[in-house]
Formats: sequence, C-alpha cells, structure tokens
Amino acid sequence: MTRFSFTVHATDGAARTGVVSTPRGQIRTPAFMPVGTAATVKAMLPENVRATGADIILGNTYHLMLRPGAERIARLGGLHRFMNWERPILTDSGGFQVMSLAGLRKLDERGVTFKSHVDGSRHELTPERSMEIQRLLGSDIVMCFDECTPFPADEATAAESMRLSMRWAARSREAFGDRPGHALFGIQQGSVFRELREESSQALRAIGFDGYAIGGLAVGEGQEAMFAVLDYAPGLLPEDKPRYLMGVGKPDDIVGAVQRGVDMFDCVLPTRSGRTGQALTRRGAVNLRNARHQDDPRPLDPDCACPCCRNYSRAYLHHVHKAQEIIAAMLLTWHNLHYYQELMQGLRDAIAAGRLDAFVADFHARRAEGDLPPL
Amino acid sequence: MTRFSFTVHATDGAARTGVVSTPRGQIRTPAFMPVGTAATVKAMLPENVRATGADIILGNTYHLMLRPGAERIARLGGLHRFMNWERPILTDSGGFQVMSLAGLRKLDERGVTFKSHVDGSRHELTPERSMEIQRLLGSDIVMCFDECTPFPADEATAAESMRLSMRWAARSREAFGDRPGHALFGIQQGSVFRELREESSQALRAIGFDGYAIGGLAVGEGQEAMFAVLDYAPGLLPEDKPRYLMGVGKPDDIVGAVQRGVDMFDCVLPTRSGRTGQALTRRGAVNLRNARHQDDPRPLDPDCACPCCRNYSRAYLHHVHKAQEIIAAMLLTWHNLHYYQELMQGLRDAIAAGRLDAFVADFHARRAEGDLPPL
Repeated sequence: MTRFSFTVHATDGAARTGVVSTPRGQIRTPAFMPVGTAATVKAMLPENVRATGADIILGNTYHLMLRPGAERIARLGGLHRFMNWERPILTDSGGFQVMSLAGLRKLDERGVTFKSHVDGSRHELTPERSMEIQRLLGSDIVMCFDECTPFPADEATAAESMRLSMRWAARSREAFGDRPGHALFGIQQGSVFRELREESSQALRAIGFDGYAIGGLAVGEGQEAMFAVLDYAPGLLPEDKPRYLMGVGKPDDIVGAVQRGVDMFDCVLPTRSGRTGQALTRRGAVNLRNARHQDDPRPLDPDCACPCCRNYSRAYLHHVHKAQEIIAAMLLTWHNLHYYQELMQGLRDAIAAGRLDAFVADFHARRAEGDLPPL
Repeated sequence: MTRFSFTVHATDGAARTGVVSTPRGQIRTPAFMPVGTAATVKAMLPENVRATGADIILGNTYHLMLRPGAERIARLGGLHRFMNWERPILTDSGGFQVMSLAGLRKLDERGVTFKSHVDGSRHELTPERSMEIQRLLGSDIVMCFDECTPFPADEATAAESMRLSMRWAARSREAFGDRPGHALFGIQQGSVFRELREESSQALRAIGFDGYAIGGLAVGEGQEAMFAVLDYAPGLLPEDKPRYLMGVGKPDDIVGAVQRGVDMFDCVLPTRSGRTGQALTRRGAVNLRNARHQDDPRPLDPDCACPCCRNYSRAYLHHVHKAQEIIAAMLLTWHNLHYYQELMQGLRDAIAAGRLDAFVADFHARRAEGDLPPL
C-alpha cells in the first residue's frame, strides 16, 4: 500500500512543483482543491470535477457532522463512496466554521460547544472528536482542530489563540494515532506577527506532521498583508512536506502564494461565483449578469477549452443566469473550476521549466488587458 | 435535403412504431420529448439529455418570446445553436401558456394580447405572430396557434372554442407557408365531445398538415375520461401522419395512449419531479424526501443503468435533496428522463415484436409490486 509522501520535482525561487502520493491517487502540486462542502462540489458531477483536472477535493467536517452525520456516512462506506469521488479528499477540522458561529458557540480549553444551524441541536467539537469525525468520513488528509485567529487581533490575543491551537495540535496528533496511508496536517497560526508564526512553526515541528497548513490568512487582512506574511511563513515550515494555504483564493492570490512557496489551496470562489453569474477568466472576472452580454455570440473565453466556452455564447449564459436556470450554475462552475485547474497546470509547468517569472508577468499582462473588447 | 416524413414500421392493435425523419435527425416513435422551456431542459446538459435517448426536445414559444426574445435568438443563429442542441426541436405555439394567464390576457378573433410575467410589458400572439416566432426560433416541428379549451366546458362553449382554433389553424397554415424540412402540426380540439373531435379532425384534414396533435386533454379530466377520448380521437386523424398527445404525461398515461395509437408525447413531469425529490421508476414513484431513505445504501432502482442509479445510494439522494444541493436536481432529473426514454424504447420494441399486451401487463405488474422492500 502506498504510504502518504511528498516529492518536490523542481523549484523556481521559493516556488516548488511536485507530487503528493496517497493510496487514492497522486496530487500534482501546486494544487487547487475544489470545495465539496456537503458531499458535493456544488452544481458539478464528480466525474466532471475530475475532468477539469482536480486531483483532490475538500470536504467540510462541520457541515457533514450535522447533515447527514459522520457515523451515518461511515455506515454507508465513507465519504468517497457516498459522494462518488474515489480520489483523495482533504477534510477541514470543523474549527473554522464553528468559530464563525458568533453567539451560538462557547469555546474553552476542551473545545467548542455549539448549536446546529440545521436543527438547533447541541454539538461539541474537540480535537479528539474532530479526529474521530474525519476518520469516520475516511478523509485522506486530516486537518488538526484549531482556532482560526480572528483578524484583526492584537499580539497578546493572537498569541493566546495560537498557543491554544498548538495544545490542540498536540491532542489532535495523539488522537489521530498511526494510520498508514492517511495524513495529518498541522496548522500554523500567529496572525500577522512573525514571532508568533515562528513560535507556532516550532511547536508544530516538535509534534511532527505529514504536512503543514498556513492558517489565519484570507480573513480580511488584504492581499498585501497576506503576501507580507507569506514572504516568510512558508519558509518556517519543513521543506520536505506539503504546505497548504487554507481558504485561498482569488487567482492572483494563488499566483503570489505559489511564488512564495505554497503547494496547496482551497477556496469556494470558483464554485460560489459560478452560482452568482461571475466567471473567472485569464482576462479577469466577467459578470454575466451584465446586459452588455445579452446579444454577444462570443464564448466567455475564446481561448478556453471547457464545455461552457466550447458550446455556449455569452448571450446564452446571460439568458440562463437571468432566468435562474440551474444550467447557468452548472456551466459557469465548470468553467471556473476548469480555469483554476488550467492556472495550476500553467504554474506547475512554469516552475518545472524554470520560467515562473515570465508566466506570472504574462498572467498579469492578460488581466490588465481586461475582458474582450465590445462587439 | 431530407424532407419531413413519417414511416410506420409496425403496428400492434392501434399502437404503431415508426420513425419521423427530419433534416436534423430521426425521431423514433412512440417518442417522449423532454421539455426545454427556457432554452434548457432544466438541470441537464443537452449532451446528457441525448444520452438518455431523447431524439427531440420541446421549446416553449411563450417563455422564449418574452426572454430572451425570438428576434434575439434568431440573430444568435437560432434556438438549436443558442442552447447547443442540434437535433430536432418542436415548439408549442404559445397559446397554452397565454390562455392560462387568466385576468392578464384578452382574447378575440384576431388573437390574444397579454402582459409578460417577466417584466409586465404588453405582447400580442396571433396565428401569424406565433408562426413568425417559431420560424425565428428555427423550430423543426411548428405547432398551430390554438385555444386549449378549458375543462370542464359545456358542448356549446367547447364547439365555439374549437371552431375558433380551426379558423386559427387555417391562418397558421397560410402564415407558415412552404418550408421544406420543417413541419406544421394541426391540433384537434373538441374537449370530451366526440362530434366536436370529428368536426375538428375534418377541418384539420381539409387544411392539411404534416402531423396532428390531440389538444385539450390532460387538463384535469382524469385518466379515465382521457382514455375514453383516446379510444376514438387518434383514429379520426390520418394514419400516415404522426399523432402527438400534448402535455402527457405520467408513465401509465403514456402507456395507455400508445395502446390507443398516439406517437408523440411531452410532459414536464420527469424534469419537474427531479427538482422536487420525486423519482419515477418501473416500481412507481419514489419520494426521496422521505426519511426512510436516509440510511439506505441501495440505488434508487437496482435495475436502472442511469448514472444516478449506478453511482449513488438512496441515502445520498435523500441527503443532497434535503440539503437543497443542485446535484439532487441533476441526478434525479437524469434518472427520470432515462426512465422515460427506456419506457419508450420498451414500447417501441414491444410493438415491433407484436407483444405490446405482454409488455403492458408486465408494466402494471411491476408497479403493483411497489417500491423496494424495507432494508
């Protein structure tokens, strides 16, 4: 049986390209993980998620524990079989969603108690319960239970929050145990404070994980502040393990983070935007709700090979979005995921060829040109 | 260029199986046409509609004229290109939807004026305008503009309504002109009155059409009353032309109508049911909303080869429907359309083999057995 492993094949500056190997398949890095919150990547069939080039998807512990329930999914053969996705799945710990239930949750050293948004029932999440749920789901990459430090936070608050997360990281490691073929990732915290990020990294390295996430970013600090942290944060983590920037992000966030040494990403942006009529393209974002598209026979992106761009006009996409037809979400989500995966492939190829700077310059130049000129 | 034609290959009692040929492809009869109201068969990609076995889909003149507009669709290359469906399309005349706008429309000899449900704008539909719109859409099978006689109606009202439709049928024929490769269908009316159906059929035959629809049924009269009309109504129409029963129906409605000599059907039931959690199977309807499915690892129908039944459990379908995930509508719509097309194939094969009675007996026996036994 394949054990979990990570191999870097090439570097270009701080950027790396390689492969994460798992018993359920390989993950080419830098990798983007589409989000499959409630056991579905919204508006997509799993075979079509794969067709966009995704090697791995993300599942949400919080949503799945409440509905349909982790024990139920386990009885049904695990999350992979349940949702018909046999490749790797990373699950978050539930911490992020629970923390954002302001007023509905109570946090102490032991963990968090909260009320379900589905039916108001009481639940508890602790490092131990989070590990148990992620095991029941059958997750390939399990995330430590942590507190995502809110932003902004003063240094004392950020330190206290980070140290709680480090104690929870040790409990997560202990509860996870030894599960060959499954990986446990630690999560670096520390907000925008370098000393705290250093302390957090040392604590995590002392415990030892199969991979390391950078948490507490993309929470409102803005791209400049995020990149300032990413200028040093990935380098604090072991070079021979994958580095995962949680909840990021926009295409230019991803490009900048890859340049700074990040290997894995997840974000709801491509799927959520697909349902609100926004397309993400190499020319930037295109809002299909806009009436300027209503007579436009051109594809969303004439250079894109996805089924949405091959077979449909902007006029059609505008029409079905306005008419609130499900196919609008289906086509735009497919395009957005295709674009994201194509971007990741471009980044991987550029790093392998040692021409990442040129790739990034071209990426920004195309976006600066903007959307197609008017007809 | 292929002209529009209809060939009967075999009969079994009053039932027939054959092929309608059009320049855009053949339609195997008896045929079920999925409804693509607003230039999309809801929750389906057109290639997947085709994969279920559909040879033709239906488009709605009323919806398309209001949004995005017939002239706009024509400028964009017609409905087929617009919605990425290159096979035959039948369009209704708009009459049925307009007539149901009680209080918002005014009918006279000339036609109907009404207010758009989308933006309140004023519109007029006449036989001439309906023909123009269906030509702009590029419809392969065009329906006469008629009044669908409400049910119940007394004989005098039904006669008056039918005669108006016959005058409109003559105007529709005149306005349609000569369009090789495109067909115009007349619509028999007369409610549940045999003499009126006879009078209507004679009027239509005198005008001459490429096919004939049976209108004014499936409007609340019930299956028994509908079958009572279908015991004679198809036989009033030319044997060598296709017969289309508009807006029908449930699987057992279709089976009974095929036995009585109907060749074509359309209905929103399989698509609409897919969005409300109802699956139509050879064992009858299955309501996936029901909590009894929440732990059921079995497929919806173990004998069905559709992607929904091959890849997902009832527990999953229950979960995604409850969570209001788009994939619920996608999978259940796919299954329902697959089931309908498989039923039509079964009917065609049975007629060709001269064993329709046995097929129908088996159809009813399976439904009487009901859904899968509890786990």
